[in-house]
Amino acid sequence: MPDYKAPLREMRFVLSELHDSEKHYASLSSEEKLTPDLLDAITSEAAKFAENVLAPINRDGDEIGCQWNDGEVTTPPGFKEAYQQFVEGGWMGLSGETSRGGQGLPTSLAVVVSEFTGTANWSWGMYPGLSMGAIRCIESHGDEQQKDIYLNKLIEGTWTGTMCLTEPHCGTDLGLLRTKAEPNDDGSYNITGTKIFISAGEHDMAENIIHMVIARVSGAPEGTKGISLFVVPKFLPDDSGDGVVGVGERNFVSCGSIEHKMGIKGSSTCVMNFDNARGFMVGEENTGLGQMFTMMNAARLGTAMQGLDMSEGSYQGALSYARERLQMRSLTGTKNPDGPADPIIVHPDVRRMLMTQKALSEGQRAFIYWIALLVDKASQGVEEERHHADALLALLTPIAKAFCTETGYEVANIGMQVFGGHGYIREHGMEQIVRDGRISMLYEGTTGIQALDLIGRKVLGSGGKLLKGFAKDVQHFCSENHSDEAMKEFVKPLSMAMKDWGELTMDIGMKAMENPDEAGAASVDYLMIGGYVVLAYMWAQMAKVAQDQLAAGSGEEAFYTAKVKTARFYFQKIMPRTLSLQATARAGAESLMALDEDSFSF
Amino acid sequence: MPDYKAPLREMRFVLSELHDSEKHYASLSSEEKLTPDLLDAITSEAAKFAENVLAPINRDGDEIGCQWNDGEVTTPPGFKEAYQQFVEGGWMGLSGETSRGGQGLPTSLAVVVSEFTGTANWSWGMYPGLSMGAIRCIESHGDEQQKDIYLNKLIEGTWTGTMCLTEPHCGTDLGLLRTKAEPNDDGSYNITGTKIFISAGEHDMAENIIHMVIARVSGAPEGTKGISLFVVPKFLPDDSGDGVVGVGERNFVSCGSIEHKMGIKGSSTCVMNFDNARGFMVGEENTGLGQMFTMMNAARLGTAMQGLDMSEGSYQGALSYARERLQMRSLTGTKNPDGPADPIIVHPDVRRMLMTQKALSEGQRAFIYWIALLVDKASQGVEEERHHADALLALLTPIAKAFCTETGYEVANIGMQVFGGHGYIREHGMEQIVRDGRISMLYEGTTGIQALDLIGRKVLGSGGKLLKGFAKDVQHFCSENHSDEAMKEFVKPLSMAMKDWGELTMDIGMKAMENPDEAGAASVDYLMIGGYVVLAYMWAQMAKVAQDQLAAGSGEEAFYTAKVKTARFYFQKIMPRTLSLQATARAGAESLMALDEDSFSF
Repeated sequence: MPDYKAPLREMRFVLSELHDSEKHYASLSSEEKLTPDLLDAITSEAAKFAENVLAPINRDGDEIGCQWNDGEVTTPPGFKEAYQQFVEGGWMGLSGETSRGGQGLPTSLAVVVSEFTGTANWSWGMYPGLSMGAIRCIESHGDEQQKDIYLNKLIEGTWTGTMCLTEPHCGTDLGLLRTKAEPNDDGSYNITGTKIFISAGEHDMAENIIHMVIARVSGAPEGTKGISLFVVPKFLPDDSGDGVVGVGERNFVSCGSIEHKMGIKGSSTCVMNFDNARGFMVGEENTGLGQMFTMMNAARLGTAMQGLDMSEGSYQGALSYARERLQMRSLTGTKNPDGPADPIIVHPDVRRMLMTQKALSEGQRAFIYWIALLVDKASQGVEEERHHADALLALLTPIAKAFCTETGYEVANIGMQVFGGHGYIREHGMEQIVRDGRISMLYEGTTGIQALDLIGRKVLGSGGKLLKGFAKDVQHFCSENHSDEAMKEFVKPLSMAMKDWGELTMDIGMKAMENPDEAGAASVDYLMIGGYVVLAYMWAQMAKVAQDQLAAGSGEEAFYTAKVKTARFYFQKIMPRTLSLQATARAGAESLMALDEDSFSF
Repeated sequence: MPDYKAPLREMRFVLSELHDSEKHYASLSSEEKLTPDLLDAITSEAAKFAENVLAPINRDGDEIGCQWNDGEVTTPPGFKEAYQQFVEGGWMGLSGETSRGGQGLPTSLAVVVSEFTGTANWSWGMYPGLSMGAIRCIESHGDEQQKDIYLNKLIEGTWTGTMCLTEPHCGTDLGLLRTKAEPNDDGSYNITGTKIFISAGEHDMAENIIHMVIARVSGAPEGTKGISLFVVPKFLPDDSGDGVVGVGERNFVSCGSIEHKMGIKGSSTCVMNFDNARGFMVGEENTGLGQMFTMMNAARLGTAMQGLDMSEGSYQGALSYARERLQMRSLTGTKNPDGPADPIIVHPDVRRMLMTQKALSEGQRAFIYWIALLVDKASQGVEEERHHADALLALLTPIAKAFCTETGYEVANIGMQVFGGHGYIREHGMEQIVRDGRISMLYEGTTGIQALDLIGRKVLGSGGKLLKGFAKDVQHFCSENHSDEAMKEFVKPLSMAMKDWGELTMDIGMKAMENPDEAGAASVDYLMIGGYVVLAYMWAQMAKVAQDQLAAGSGEEAFYTAKVKTARFYFQKIMPRTLSLQATARAGAESLMALDEDSFSF
């Protein structure tokens, strides 16, 4: 990718103009108030760190990758030093409690910062991302002693965290897990088993690694009801003495190997062997799955952000190439008479690609930042907003994860396409974005799993209530702008699409009562419709903000005009995708299930 | 990818049952008649070669790749030996003239064989693929001496070929090319310039490499009208003496480096430097572009086949995994009571993925084999069929190239998705299919270029005639089966989609007369609609064949039932994609072109 430039103006537009972050941050009960000035100062610093420290080491991260040697993992050149700067800057503790060394700022700020770091260097961003999951988990479920020992270190960043869920024979189906926990007399447990796909499971960037491990206590019930959560440190903490926690003896957990992957090669993906490793139960016995979901929800939002990361990175690369590459003349007359040909940005199909990238990535940003603000509201917002925020989060998180990664991958592939054959060559960095990005539709629950969560647990599981809550908000916006002539082109199709989505929900719900396979058969199409409706809602609101600014005579006319034109593109060229998705979602389960298993090949 | 198994039963179904190859081959004027027995014998041997020789060296081809050292390129382990076997088996000359050592069999047979070799090992398949292009080009445009020297060796396979078009500053826009040809007194030329992205430009598999190079003779007109074609051998042929052509002195052409790419790492992609290299003009001066298109058309069909290659390979891998991987229980009741969970093939969304792979890959095969038979007809068919075959080829080749690679890439990505996180790990081979396959939408003209060729040159350029010819065939099939109750579910939507495609053509044609950007703006959507219509035509015909067999009491009931059910899936779950494409194709150019170039980012 060419030089990364953090999109600060876009960020400000979404946060403060679209989502009114000034009012939002003023209303939160966060320990520190995030004023507009502070927001600007922090995000500007984050932009510099991403642009100047992380982006330059991204290519080596891919070309050299992580190296495993006898249980030790060496991260790519510069990764360790960049992490050191990150820790020294206090970035890991941005949203951590002040009493534990954090800065007490709202969660959403850390999410915004993670856009910049993740776009600049996805693999590097994985390490603090995993720590964040462990922090959230111990904050929510750990006891005071666990918080004193682990949380402070994680917030400081001197120790990092992991999530240890998957085993060779079980990914989605965690009820099958075999890792065992045997109680010791001192209240600790001996953990034995093999975990795979453990991001940041071993590396050389921090003095200790804290594994959040799910395992089954001997005698626990089978299936998901017998899963408990444990904290298993690489080095046992040494807190005997002066109250300062240090690193004690090595625990019996080791990295057996790292995976050779399609991408994210700078992120270590480890096979972790627990061999009577000492672990400490977090929360109550047999409630581990629920606790793990605390991490999973943060991780799903983090993965949705990775969808935006690949979109933004690929768009920046493609746009710069399309402006420079001279090839053929415009069909409507020469645009670059002094050159041997016109820049390819003049050609309609290149335009289609760039506009698709732009409309999707800006839409994703509006969507994901909104969710980040809802996360603030759910924990630190005023009382009457919390329940509504929780309900929206339950509905929108699986959509954000699956939709933003699916469309992000599309955008990343478009970026390669704009480069033509050059997109396939490693040195341009465009294909790395595709390879890195491909993991996002797989980890933290595949697209199919998100879709089942959405349609099964969230929508049908709530008797439609969660969807109705969202629909009410959308229809409220539509009614408010119903009579605004300039908004008609956005409001009308948004209102229609929302109504169609609701009707589809009813139809699938009815069919699923007869045959539970009907929900699964429609699930991914259903989720994608949801994503396009949410983005339509975002784009309609962005158009509204922009039109108001233009009407008020804003000095940034070009910026706001571009917003209205991009909204128009979204509604004309992207939104019609729901037509096909509606048809296929309604086509039912029969044609999927009709074939005998033996008849798939002959 | 797990063990590759050449789909011989599918091939036979498409060739002989769907496209009536027995009658087809009997009607050709090919030197050797391809009887059903001979077809079976040759394809069975090709299957063994692909399964036992090529598939096993595919992973090393990716992991080790080609190595460049001081102008020499070493191919991955086993590549050279496999090529030797290929040459000894006479495979390169399958469709070559018997007087030049070939076997005189129809071209389509070589296409079928290339499915097996390309699915088993895409990178390896590139080498004979490039030779085939050079063979076609010299056959069509070379003089007798050039044929005697080069064609015999290429058909034998002891020499291989390349196509040298692209230069650093020009890919699509060949009119910009700078490579120069200066005439020598002996009628030869000195060629000087740099060509990039030259597949098989240098390697260790053959004793000589024959470059087909486009260049500009000094004083030639600018742009595409001043392009001539030259044959430039790596070693100058030594034909002085006993009439046996050998390898003479080294020519001044050298490989400066090879590209580091996303995939097809076993295929050398070379920067070729021509430094007063001796070359010999092929055909008339300044007619090189047209001659190059002889190669390009073969290459586009070859690339369409690569779309099928990735589909078939990924489907085989995903199907085998979906049958073995145990995860969760079916929602309609336990299907594998003796195991800890059900195989994931029971889940509706996994079914959706597998059925999509199956419907698209079998549809692609029907489409591509049809084109291959049309290639036979155009050159060796009975007189009255030649013109119709030519017209269909002109229309269908760009659709096949772009549509089969775009949907092939979709199918390849679905295969990874079925594997969950394991799909991202290199050892399973599923991600290699995606990485290898990604090039197919870029080389031999990007999807966008195919789409412009289709809508601009072929459809609007023929005043709609080419499309009308195809439409007539489709509507003829529909009328014939109109009253067949069992065919209604296929015939009705096919007929409608064909009609809608025709109407869309009229609309775009009208708009393009006002504004030439309108054709470009709709082009890719337009091409994809065409692809779905062609596949619908294929699936309707396949359903017809299968229903007839079932009605006649075939002993292969399961096979034919699967065909009908897959056709149904195609019409219910894939075909509705045209709804969205119709809407976006009709949305026009305005929303694409409205944004100022400076307003794409702020």
